[in-house]
Amino acid sequence: MAIAQVTIVPIGTGSTSLSGYVAELQRVLERAGGPVRYELTAMSTIIEGELEDILQVVREMHEAPFAQGALRVSTTLTIDDRRDKAASIRSKVESVERKLRG
Amino acid sequence: MAIAQVTIVPIGTGSTSLSGYVAELQRVLERAGGPVRYELTAMSTIIEGELEDILQVVREMHEAPFAQGALRVSTTLTIDDRRDKAASIRSKVESVERKLRG
Amino acid sequence: MAIAQVTIVPIGTGSTSLSGYVAELQRVLERAGGPVRYELTAMSTIIEGELEDILQVVREMHEAPFAQGALRVSTTLTIDDRRDKAASIRSKVESVERKLRG
Amino acid sequence: MAIAQVTIVPIGTGSTSLSGYVAELQRVLERAGGPVRYELTAMSTIIEGELEDILQVVREMHEAPFAQGALRVSTTLTIDDRRDKAASIRSKVESVERKLRG
Repeated sequence: MAIAQVTIVPIGTGSTSLSGYVAELQRVLERAGGPVRYELTAMSTIIEGELEDILQVVREMHEAPFAQGALRVSTTLTIDDRRDKAASIRSKVESVERKLRG
Repeated sequence: MAIAQVTIVPIGTGSTSLSGYVAELQRVLERAGGPVRYELTAMSTIIEGELEDILQVVREMHEAPFAQGALRVSTTLTIDDRRDKAASIRSKVESVERKLRG
Repeated sequence: MAIAQVTIVPIGTGSTSLSGYVAELQRVLERAGGPVRYELTAMSTIIEGELEDILQVVREMHEAPFAQGALRVSTTLTIDDRRDKAASIRSKVESVERKLRG
Repeated sequence: MAIAQVTIVPIGTGSTSLSGYVAELQRVLERAGGPVRYELTAMSTIIEGELEDILQVVREMHEAPFAQGALRVSTTLTIDDRRDKAASIRSKVESVERKLRG
């Protein structure tokens, strides 16, 4: 399992509001269902799952703004892939919180 | 006010665990106090505040891993600065959630 | 065709030097051959090609540090995908240079 | 000295073309003069200099699209700061090329 962070921005849409595009990205993730878990933050969407499943859903998310009429899309993906130990969205945050209390 | 996302990674530390470094970043933010609000996610720290205050605290965060012994640090910062409308960590997420319910 | 920028960093390797890992990424790209063109910069590798080919080669590049012994890898990919006009690594830079002379 | 990579994108401008904005970023860098060296690539601008000088010029670059009329700007900055050894835009690329010939 890997954890990823993705931000997808349509360019040249004429409106400073992006929430309609971000909502559509969440719908793509919802439809993807089982293979990945995700969480929306103010700056990106965090996705947890097998690397192949993450890449597959990011591929679909990248198409969403085009389907909504955008002609240029900038997608930024960061993958954190750790193979010596199981990690999850929750365990990563908890690990820091333990250190802060500790 | 702007919203930013920052990820700071020490390179060449010999351990795959980063939580001790990330915890220290949270302590830097805690000490910064009033000027900025922040939120830890599994992939980054999200910061809300005046642009100058964000840049100031990111500058301090970038030094933290060096103070802990790292010799090379990679810092990635994304700033979302919107000047036609007030935005906050909370309002950005709520705006997407409204569209999803809508 | 899309243009992408990718930075792949092994975490916890014990050495601040990354050039051996970056050299291996260039070998992966060389083997990928025809489908993509690429260019090494001081901060990333820029890749031009069909989106599917870019994603395929980035997938292979992401595995390279693991094959060299890394246990955790951080991969950051930015895709610039413009569908109203053909763009290339060269045409993007030339377009800015024309504006600067202009 | 540190090396950084910065990409600055105006959001909601109504045109898919960004070259006029990127050209203006180069002018900001030109005016900054001595303290930093820079290089335009197809996906970002790479800057080399003292960390404080880099942050100062990125701060000015971030304002440029607003001065050109943009109301929302997304700025992504990656800083590679190595303190065990001098590094430059040129030396980083040469180090990889030496390994490839090697």
